[in-house]
Amino acid sequence: MTDTVGISLLGPGNIGSAVVGALARGSDRYAARVGRPLELRRVLVRDASKPRDGVRADQLTTRIEDVLADAGTQIVVELMGGEEPARTYIEQSLRAGKHVVTANKEVIAKAGAALLQIAADHGVRLLYEASVGGGIPVIAPLSRDLLANEVTAVTAIINGTTNYMLTAMTQQGADYGAILAEAQRLGYAEPDPTADVEGFDASYKIAVLCGLAFNVDVAPGEVTRQGISGITARDIAYAGQLGSVIKLLARARLVDGEVEVSVQPTLIGRGEPLAKVDGVLNAVQLEGDLVGRVLFEGPGAGPGPTTSSVLADVLDIAQDIVAERAPRPAVPRRRVRVRPPEEHMARYYLRIRVLDQPGVLARIAKSLGDAQISIASVIQFDSEDQATEGTAELVLTVHRASGAALQGALAEIRRMDSVVEVGNVLPMEG
Amino acid sequence: MTDTVGISLLGPGNIGSAVVGALARGSDRYAARVGRPLELRRVLVRDASKPRDGVRADQLTTRIEDVLADAGTQIVVELMGGEEPARTYIEQSLRAGKHVVTANKEVIAKAGAALLQIAADHGVRLLYEASVGGGIPVIAPLSRDLLANEVTAVTAIINGTTNYMLTAMTQQGADYGAILAEAQRLGYAEPDPTADVEGFDASYKIAVLCGLAFNVDVAPGEVTRQGISGITARDIAYAGQLGSVIKLLARARLVDGEVEVSVQPTLIGRGEPLAKVDGVLNAVQLEGDLVGRVLFEGPGAGPGPTTSSVLADVLDIAQDIVAERAPRPAVPRRRVRVRPPEEHMARYYLRIRVLDQPGVLARIAKSLGDAQISIASVIQFDSEDQATEGTAELVLTVHRASGAALQGALAEIRRMDSVVEVGNVLPMEG
Repeated sequence: MTDTVGISLLGPGNIGSAVVGALARGSDRYAARVGRPLELRRVLVRDASKPRDGVRADQLTTRIEDVLADAGTQIVVELMGGEEPARTYIEQSLRAGKHVVTANKEVIAKAGAALLQIAADHGVRLLYEASVGGGIPVIAPLSRDLLANEVTAVTAIINGTTNYMLTAMTQQGADYGAILAEAQRLGYAEPDPTADVEGFDASYKIAVLCGLAFNVDVAPGEVTRQGISGITARDIAYAGQLGSVIKLLARARLVDGEVEVSVQPTLIGRGEPLAKVDGVLNAVQLEGDLVGRVLFEGPGAGPGPTTSSVLADVLDIAQDIVAERAPRPAVPRRRVRVRPPEEHMARYYLRIRVLDQPGVLARIAKSLGDAQISIASVIQFDSEDQATEGTAELVLTVHRASGAALQGALAEIRRMDSVVEVGNVLPMEG
Repeated sequence: MTDTVGISLLGPGNIGSAVVGALARGSDRYAARVGRPLELRRVLVRDASKPRDGVRADQLTTRIEDVLADAGTQIVVELMGGEEPARTYIEQSLRAGKHVVTANKEVIAKAGAALLQIAADHGVRLLYEASVGGGIPVIAPLSRDLLANEVTAVTAIINGTTNYMLTAMTQQGADYGAILAEAQRLGYAEPDPTADVEGFDASYKIAVLCGLAFNVDVAPGEVTRQGISGITARDIAYAGQLGSVIKLLARARLVDGEVEVSVQPTLIGRGEPLAKVDGVLNAVQLEGDLVGRVLFEGPGAGPGPTTSSVLADVLDIAQDIVAERAPRPAVPRRRVRVRPPEEHMARYYLRIRVLDQPGVLARIAKSLGDAQISIASVIQFDSEDQATEGTAELVLTVHRASGAALQGALAEIRRMDSVVEVGNVLPMEG
């Protein structure tokens, strides 16, 4: 029993500084909420000789052992990012009987279930609201306001970089390369943009959301993943003609006791709420049997929003500490079968470059028909530049089909002499 | 101590039936969550001889006394709507030591603070998540996920009827009367639409939100209120030229320890998330010092969404009953000064019909300038129909000004010989 709730931070940086600043500015308010002041104890850094705003020199340390051995530290806040050593430090903190709050999507996606079990075994909590969707509230709505519902689907825009890029491509009619360069110049994309543009970041986050929404354990590698680097200005223009925009959607659905989970550039009708989430904003849409669809939108990243979520978790734990409430027993994560992409059912958009000859469409339509896939619409665009003279682009949309049926038909279509190239194949939402 | 948690319903109807159905369908799941089955006890109806799905004849009653006297009823769910007798029944239930869950915005807006005090005095809880925004989660995000923030503003679209109508007017370029008739035909507007179109419904809800977001008690009559019946297709077209749409926005802001709260048709830039909330959807946007802006969007009405919120409240209370947790002591509502419209600061859109003569604009600009109001833009639209031949319409936007300064200048402008009519004066968001 102490007269404060002690908090130590792992990792300085922007977010860490914002958390330190907010703890200082809000100290009276937080103390009133919790019933006891929050006290900053140790801050783990790489270089303890560098001064940090709001942190005394004697609070800085380069050794995790100093945090673990500090009896006054009841909550460890991990803000280092990356898989290691963050994962190990989180585990060590839990085993030392300290509650942990983290913003680390990679660790939670890859090791969340195991770490939650360790937390439960040691009578402490592991919270991670900030690891998905920055400041957007997700945990409380799921655990309280939507509790009467069976939540059956989560559809989300949870990568700000790619949403910024796709929005800019749509608004400017520009191609991927130009917009990536612009995003890098503005600091919205990393010098190596792979984690964002190839969908890895979003796949970590949707894996985390499967745990929160369905209590189902999904490994990031099980997420069907397709990045945006293959999306062209033409795809976006064609989508526009179909009344849609292209968004990198992260989706998870419970279907017949199995889970379908994917991150894919997806056509979505312009009138849909998710289609209107533009720029660096993030959004999470939940579907429940009673409520229908609700959408939460907000800033997906940045020091302020991340601090908001980190401190929400900290205050939740601090209130429990003061009330001497034991953590509720862990509900063990369920393992259910994760469907491979061949079994995903979706409507699809297909872009196929063909020789401008009679009969091509008939042959393509026959291949699709033989695979029991029905065509919903076809638009033919004649080539407008020299490089592709004598060819035309067919944009087809097809009714719901399995990934397997579609891939089978596409393999046959690719072998046709009159087919120059099968371009993008994208799912359509709704 | 009983082996169930007993629930009685006041008011049958669509919502009541949906609640009864959901309790039956979800009984196993809810029992697992709560740790004890939920049991439907009594249902208060006007006509007990009329059979109701899922309710035994001996559960029906026309007398509130039967509910109050039922020792097995621990939670009373009030779904009657309207002020009386709902308010009295809620009070009687609380005084009888029963928790109450209500979807009744009018009662909560008018008597919420008093009823919350009565609940606290009797050691029971009064919850009302369903009274605002249908199924949209509001309570849990405010009380948990955004707890680290100082919430300083709530901006909401919380009346589905008017949002449907303004969306249709925008999309069809149609006038108010035609769209009202269409909305009435489709069942989106009542035969007497006053409560919706004049902003009374939204003013109840924003008063409730002031309690939830700021813990401040505001009476519905203190809400600055302007309906949409004066909005014309021309206003919407002019707003469009200014890059905006018109929405009936309910807004509440904490400014220097006072509250500004209004329901008004408002111009809002097309790129803003709230501008994109269309049709019967509702949305609540919260602004916090850390998170910035987050928006919650979803169905604002209907049996399913309302049931989702009602049962969230019921499950919350039921969990407390089983855990034998006493209700937290009531935080007394604060009374702060509610600013009259004269003190509201906003940018404004002004539509003024003038004689098509030289010098008119200069005189109007002088009046505004004398009141320290600066003009941001002016567009002149010449009359296109005979009735107003020889006149022109000036659409002005002005920088931030107080309501008092603006009304002073408008009084002077109205007196000018060359001014035919001061049309709509609408605030601009942002």
